[in-house]
Amino acid sequence: MSTTETTTQLNDVNIAAVAGLAGKIVEEPAVAATTWQATVDWKGAFRSEASIRDFAPAVSDEPESLGGGDAGPNPVEQLLGALGNCLAVGYAANATMAGIDIKDLQVKVEGDLDLHTFLGLTDGNAGFEDIRVNVHLDSDASPEQLQELHAKVTSTSPVGHTLARTVPLHIDLAQ
Amino acid sequence: MSTTETTTQLNDVNIAAVAGLAGKIVEEPAVAATTWQATVDWKGAFRSEASIRDFAPAVSDEPESLGGGDAGPNPVEQLLGALGNCLAVGYAANATMAGIDIKDLQVKVEGDLDLHTFLGLTDGNAGFEDIRVNVHLDSDASPEQLQELHAKVTSTSPVGHTLARTVPLHIDLAQ
Repeated sequence: MSTTETTTQLNDVNIAAVAGLAGKIVEEPAVAATTWQATVDWKGAFRSEASIRDFAPAVSDEPESLGGGDAGPNPVEQLLGALGNCLAVGYAANATMAGIDIKDLQVKVEGDLDLHTFLGLTDGNAGFEDIRVNVHLDSDASPEQLQELHAKVTSTSPVGHTLARTVPLHIDLAQ
Repeated sequence: MSTTETTTQLNDVNIAAVAGLAGKIVEEPAVAATTWQATVDWKGAFRSEASIRDFAPAVSDEPESLGGGDAGPNPVEQLLGALGNCLAVGYAANATMAGIDIKDLQVKVEGDLDLHTFLGLTDGNAGFEDIRVNVHLDSDASPEQLQELHAKVTSTSPVGHTLARTVPLHIDLAQ
């Protein structure tokens, strides 16, 4: 941003950049409408690579117990990682806005999934039945401040909302 | 698996391993109940790392336009990548079971997200409003075979179902 104001930082977060984006969206709401993309190339068997912008492709595979070559985390593990990363951003952003210093933050995510549907043995839910997250936050803030922070983060998490709500999914096959 | 049968491969998929797992689950349904995990460590600002089993931690960050350092794909992009990878596994597994040879497979995923809620400007949906997937599959199979394959994959995708359905999400904060 081409501002001349001094950048104030807490939790290493560039507060001016975040506040600037929010201000820009208030002025021009259409700026908030974003589209995100990923391109996946199949590499044989259960291995594939997801390419996102100019970052190095990330390898995906299934463990040997599921017939894969175990060259990388599998898709459902990646999804849990995405949720943990999203919550970490949420805590960092909202703690900073609330003036709360984060000393340390770890997010542990786990989810239960029944393989029957994926393996074609029954109809039903192939996805996660339940996802549990334990957030360990080290801070000098009061329990009240942290509970307020927690409520803010969980009510504004993009990945959290995507999982907790139904998302219209349009999957088209072209030869 | 300690079978002595010859492993037959198509699309590089180890058919015996997949069939063996399905057979094992038919015999002992509890084997299908799996739990998956990811641990995320915050690294300052909007950067974090997701650790999954013994794989190298994957870096997550936000682009500079969102106040991040742009050191890696952001969480919502990772989620789209997970969906694409999951569908790739689904096509590989189900094509192989149907005797369909895959020459090439690419999955393009994109999703729309309004930043108002994430930035705390309005209440509402912080997550994806819509996700679109284009699957490009190169194969000699008939259009009918491919449509049947497509229907099978989309009705059995773990990440697809997780996104298209509501998942109970339990997020606990510990200091």
